[in-house]
Amino acid sequence: MIGIDWGTTSFRAYRIARDGSIRDRRASTRGILNVPDGRFGDTLREEIGPWLALGEDRVLLSGMIGSRQGWKEAPYLPCPATPAAIAAALTDIEFDWAQVKLVPGLSGTDAAGVAEVMRGEETQVIGIPALMANGGIACLPGTHSKWVRVEHGRIAHFTTHMTGEVYAALRGHTILGRTIRDGAPNSTAFEAGVERAGNQGGLLHHIFGVRAQTLTGQLAETDAGAYLSGILIGHEIRAGLAGHPGAVVQVIGTPDLTQLYATAITACGGFAERHDGDAAAQGLALIGAHAAWDRQL
Amino acid sequence: MIGIDWGTTSFRAYRIARDGSIRDRRASTRGILNVPDGRFGDTLREEIGPWLALGEDRVLLSGMIGSRQGWKEAPYLPCPATPAAIAAALTDIEFDWAQVKLVPGLSGTDAAGVAEVMRGEETQVIGIPALMANGGIACLPGTHSKWVRVEHGRIAHFTTHMTGEVYAALRGHTILGRTIRDGAPNSTAFEAGVERAGNQGGLLHHIFGVRAQTLTGQLAETDAGAYLSGILIGHEIRAGLAGHPGAVVQVIGTPDLTQLYATAITACGGFAERHDGDAAAQGLALIGAHAAWDRQL
Repeated sequence: MIGIDWGTTSFRAYRIARDGSIRDRRASTRGILNVPDGRFGDTLREEIGPWLALGEDRVLLSGMIGSRQGWKEAPYLPCPATPAAIAAALTDIEFDWAQVKLVPGLSGTDAAGVAEVMRGEETQVIGIPALMANGGIACLPGTHSKWVRVEHGRIAHFTTHMTGEVYAALRGHTILGRTIRDGAPNSTAFEAGVERAGNQGGLLHHIFGVRAQTLTGQLAETDAGAYLSGILIGHEIRAGLAGHPGAVVQVIGTPDLTQLYATAITACGGFAERHDGDAAAQGLALIGAHAAWDRQL
Repeated sequence: MIGIDWGTTSFRAYRIARDGSIRDRRASTRGILNVPDGRFGDTLREEIGPWLALGEDRVLLSGMIGSRQGWKEAPYLPCPATPAAIAAALTDIEFDWAQVKLVPGLSGTDAAGVAEVMRGEETQVIGIPALMANGGIACLPGTHSKWVRVEHGRIAHFTTHMTGEVYAALRGHTILGRTIRDGAPNSTAFEAGVERAGNQGGLLHHIFGVRAQTLTGQLAETDAGAYLSGILIGHEIRAGLAGHPGAVVQVIGTPDLTQLYATAITACGGFAERHDGDAAAQGLALIGAHAAWDRQL
């Protein structure tokens, strides 16, 4: 089968063998925002045409491609959800060259009863077998980071943190950007930011320290971006670990982000295990194995 | 004397009698960002010329006019600072039509030793006589809100919270803006946001609820701005009141902002007393009374 993690700004496809191993992969920047005029079918055929020619006829899509802004809206499935329940809730989509199904996103509520939604991260979480078997916490860092709790083989609940998007907005559209200059990654400044997040005063106060400390010469402008990133990620992680001190967190994402988060989780008293984006392929394979495909096209 | 609160985007001048009463006032939008080519002297003469013609020859300026981006940089005075110490640290400025002096800004550190600075708010705090006499907490809401602690007649320490600027950045430059539409002020939505700030999960999570709840129909798009404002102000106030439950907070600012903050402070278990921007005039009068003016021009 072919499994595709089709997000807002990226497209990652995997050709997956029956035993779940990845036979081939390809990636492009043709996320849903970069597909003109809703030409999702044409884009799909261009991207995976060679695999279709090899006889692959089952395609499973997850991510924002199933949103209102994507190819077709796949209704959210409420939490708690097992992989089998997700596989039973796929949405079929018209495509002349193969069977195509969409993985639903998940909906839920946080501890206070406030609505939550995700699309795509559920597939990556399902792709970590030990997490699904034993339960635990997953963190998927990014523009909108997700913290996901797995219990009894089900995705039980999750929270979204706007860490990446807030970083970009603060840097690009507030006074903080005036004293932040590009610099080499600085883990000392980053870790100082993570530690700062544990002080009293709150996030809205801590971020002002980026400006005050650059103005007073206590922080180099080339380190200020790393420090701001540390403050925001530190706040996210402290919220994610609250009530779970010393927890093991499965961090899933690109190597640079999971490295940053692993450093920060350790600094906040947790333990991190890192996984790359191929977790999506494993999750797609598992959902695909449960799915009701037609025997022939 | 003439006292002027000359900020980034506004200019507020007061003609003050010997007994501290305000004889006349004028305001314009000629904040330092709106004065072209550094023509601060010309601007001042245009704004207060009629009062100079009446024989006023002492002018005291506070606010960002004393910053590096202003007329002349007035070095920060370190906290703790009394009104007399501030009056002894004025910076003289060249002006052909009157004696002009600049109030210094204050510098300090927060509880964790991180640098803090302010310009202009110190003058407003000094303008609340009961606060200076008895000690207590002041809150000056705005783009960069200040929380100021007065002890033993001195401004002891203070913290800055980027509440107003973060609100604008989130609304204007993140996905949250897509589901926020202008609406009539809604105190129920605002108070729901203030309460939300007390939940677990942290600010970066709480703000995502603006989007999740508008998408799921739990929050009207016309109420989403008030809700977001409540979340941010709620976080600021909870940080400001931490360690001081049930405190009385002197809130100084424009009537609309002090009303919002007073509502939120009450919801967070504190007590609020509201003051308008004329506190600056009282502070300028008090500093001016301590200042060493030349007997004649």
